[in-house]
Amino acid sequence: MKEIIVEFTEKPKLKDPILVEGLPGVGNVGKLAAEHMIDELKAKKFGTLISKFFPPQVLVKDDGTIRLVSNDFYYLKRKDKKRDLILLVGDYQGLTPEGQYELSWEVLDIIEQLGVKRIFTLGGYGIGKMVEEPRVLGAATNKKFVEEMKKHGVVFQQGEPGSGIVGASGLLLGLGVMRNIEACCLMGETSGYFVDPKSARKVLEALCSALEVKIEFSALEDKAAQIDKITSRFKEIEKDLSENKADDLRYIG
Amino acid sequence: MKEIIVEFTEKPKLKDPILVEGLPGVGNVGKLAAEHMIDELKAKKFGTLISKFFPPQVLVKDDGTIRLVSNDFYYLKRKDKKRDLILLVGDYQGLTPEGQYELSWEVLDIIEQLGVKRIFTLGGYGIGKMVEEPRVLGAATNKKFVEEMKKHGVVFQQGEPGSGIVGASGLLLGLGVMRNIEACCLMGETSGYFVDPKSARKVLEALCSALEVKIEFSALEDKAAQIDKITSRFKEIEKDLSENKADDLRYIG
Amino acid sequence: MKEIIVEFTEKPKLKDPILVEGLPGVGNVGKLAAEHMIDELKAKKFGTLISKFFPPQVLVKDDGTIRLVSNDFYYLKRKDKKRDLILLVGDYQGLTPEGQYELSWEVLDIIEQLGVKRIFTLGGYGIGKMVEEPRVLGAATNKKFVEEMKKHGVVFQQGEPGSGIVGASGLLLGLGVMRNIEACCLMGETSGYFVDPKSARKVLEALCSALEVKIEFSALEDKAAQIDKITSRFKEIEKDLSENKADDLRYIG
Amino acid sequence: MKEIIVEFTEKPKLKDPILVEGLPGVGNVGKLAAEHMIDELKAKKFGTLISKFFPPQVLVKDDGTIRLVSNDFYYLKRKDKKRDLILLVGDYQGLTPEGQYELSWEVLDIIEQLGVKRIFTLGGYGIGKMVEEPRVLGAATNKKFVEEMKKHGVVFQQGEPGSGIVGASGLLLGLGVMRNIEACCLMGETSGYFVDPKSARKVLEALCSALEVKIEFSALEDKAAQIDKITSRFKEIEKDLSENKADDLRYIG
Repeated sequence: MKEIIVEFTEKPKLKDPILVEGLPGVGNVGKLAAEHMIDELKAKKFGTLISKFFPPQVLVKDDGTIRLVSNDFYYLKRKDKKRDLILLVGDYQGLTPEGQYELSWEVLDIIEQLGVKRIFTLGGYGIGKMVEEPRVLGAATNKKFVEEMKKHGVVFQQGEPGSGIVGASGLLLGLGVMRNIEACCLMGETSGYFVDPKSARKVLEALCSALEVKIEFSALEDKAAQIDKITSRFKEIEKDLSENKADDLRYIG
Repeated sequence: MKEIIVEFTEKPKLKDPILVEGLPGVGNVGKLAAEHMIDELKAKKFGTLISKFFPPQVLVKDDGTIRLVSNDFYYLKRKDKKRDLILLVGDYQGLTPEGQYELSWEVLDIIEQLGVKRIFTLGGYGIGKMVEEPRVLGAATNKKFVEEMKKHGVVFQQGEPGSGIVGASGLLLGLGVMRNIEACCLMGETSGYFVDPKSARKVLEALCSALEVKIEFSALEDKAAQIDKITSRFKEIEKDLSENKADDLRYIG
Repeated sequence: MKEIIVEFTEKPKLKDPILVEGLPGVGNVGKLAAEHMIDELKAKKFGTLISKFFPPQVLVKDDGTIRLVSNDFYYLKRKDKKRDLILLVGDYQGLTPEGQYELSWEVLDIIEQLGVKRIFTLGGYGIGKMVEEPRVLGAATNKKFVEEMKKHGVVFQQGEPGSGIVGASGLLLGLGVMRNIEACCLMGETSGYFVDPKSARKVLEALCSALEVKIEFSALEDKAAQIDKITSRFKEIEKDLSENKADDLRYIG
Repeated sequence: MKEIIVEFTEKPKLKDPILVEGLPGVGNVGKLAAEHMIDELKAKKFGTLISKFFPPQVLVKDDGTIRLVSNDFYYLKRKDKKRDLILLVGDYQGLTPEGQYELSWEVLDIIEQLGVKRIFTLGGYGIGKMVEEPRVLGAATNKKFVEEMKKHGVVFQQGEPGSGIVGASGLLLGLGVMRNIEACCLMGETSGYFVDPKSARKVLEALCSALEVKIEFSALEDKAAQIDKITSRFKEIEKDLSENKADDLRYIG
């Protein structure tokens, strides 16, 4: 079996396309953002990638049929002189470092053939605590791109993220440089404890501004409201703990 | 050394054969079911598969001689116009995701050459608690197969199994689609804490109904009785704990 | 880099040679036994095997120079009509299942070219408690070999070892079958907590009887005495615990 | 994607060059030492190595742009008849044993082409406690090199390091032997709990003596002072614990 198998149902002709990647990761921020974009803009699926680097697993659909875990390519043609879009989403990232490198390399092979010269990768930036107003942090392959994205509210702050960017959202930038594809990673701040639609929205706002896309956020807001219900309880507990620590301890002994 | 080595003692000519896979997994349901079928129907071994993806281990037989851990192929010729059967059982599944994919790919290569166009994979569905009347859940590669298996008592329930199907029982379906081999996975509900001959029997009942096979279950019933002795003690403890929790706790302090 | 690199300083012509393998494992029984045999019989080193499947490590010799961790081949020419011997010892076994298979495969390639038709693999059989008179358990590739070794005091007991034989001592048997090389594994009972020269001696006694080799055991006895000093203290503790359990517990509360 | 990709910005012609390797490891002693040497001697970067054996990660620079994690080659031309230097530093070593072997093999391929016949590898030797005056231990590929390095204060002590040398600092020696490249590993004693600029300085002093290099240590001294502030607090705690153990315990009950 080949390490990676890609099947295309269509080979779309695209106008100077831009890739938007949103695979699972911290707070599932990138995946939520990219999937929301696909749903709202009714992007069309045209390719499926399966791999030995993914878990050996099939998912069961509502009608009782199955599909292999995969990464999937969508495209969106745009009017006027706006550049077309390719979106990459999926169930998993590669399970091993080797798999991560091979998968990003393969993705670059595919999109290079489709004429992609610019990539946005979307992800979360885990900060280990609840965040009311998540910032969108950025990192890019060149300084001009950095300056461009600052205009769309993206924060480039020295020393953040200190540990670098791990996974596809980082590798597409790092390996893209070797092919003269410019790329920018947008990272929404998130606790890292929950899936975070609020952070995904912030990332999308910056991205849509850069792409000149208009999008509805009500579906993401609904998800955010659901998560908020769950997390608000946690915040209460956090507050109680920090305020009444001494008192609480009295009751233990 | 090749990653997978298959040795055939015979290349049987089979009449539109159906593969039944039962490798180790949750509650060993699939393995128990397939091995019982081989024993009862006196299926004949014709191939052995060894692999670097299995543990580096030999097993010692009762006469002091050894054999490498393996997966093994059996066949059963059937009278009238009934389709012949191939059965796949073994000591282990692949140890790594890569191994899982390669092994399922190899199995598909082998059975495709033998003319297989339909697969049943057998497994357990762990639900984390004792279950008196295990259901048999299903998932298949197409809707027609789903409808067919409903007639044999198999349950296709939305959202189950929520985590998909992991291992050979899933991959043979997922990778089978790519070769136009239709496949259905039958999963017997099981606690996941013990090997479960009772669940294996339920799976076999559904399978035998679909295959028009008649089979004795007394050997499985004996195994089930043995396991019941062990598990009944656990059930008592479980009951005690849930009924007398308050009382029990009194004695701790 | 090749996965396995073998360098020979000499290609000895050997008379119907027998391989004796003793690599690290439970209680280091096999390694102790084979190394003792090399020392006592003054076997001559003629080949070194290094591999990516070993740890990335060099060892420092007493004179400050280094050598890569390796497996090493020795040979011993014997007078009269006795078959010559090849001995395989080393610092490590392969770190992964794949590595284990590849290394055993390579060893079989090498010894097949040297004319080996019979193998003895040496190892320990961990039983989890101190053992005064360790038995030597066996497993072999054919029944005739089983019967032969029974005459040398080797025990072939149904159900032992229940978990099979893991590592090179098992794979050389299992993969040897595929090349018509007959092989027998000799396993000395051992606690599994310490290196066990006493168990190694028992294994050697059976082996030397089978090979018609005479050997001194004083060096092994010295090692055994050292280990005995350490383990006797443990035995005392064990005894105290089992005899005075009730009393001991009194002091806890 | 190739397992290892090396890009050169320049192929320098070097005079009988010596490789100095300092990759991350115990106390980061080797990395600190080699990076300090690069900074002080203003060595010039000429090659970058990326690999699937490294983490799938990019690092973010102060200007918001990124770079893949890598190993990097620098060179330094020297006047008079002094041999030129190549320095190898980097973010990571290979993540797996296989990766470690492949990367060291590749490094040897590269430097062999550049004419390297002598290597110094730098590392730390963890001893598990604070050390006031770290010794520099050595190991080399031949006895003559051992004797040479003793003159520069390097200690070759029987039984140290007992566990051998793990990683690139060991493999470059072990695999170098196979290519007739002589090599010496210099290991600075270090607790293993902190990055250790003091140990790095000791290693550099021995190295610079051997290479006839003059170097400033003030930058390393500044780092050492910072670390000292942190570690001195730990030393106090250690002292308290050992002196007042009995007293401390009184307060627990």
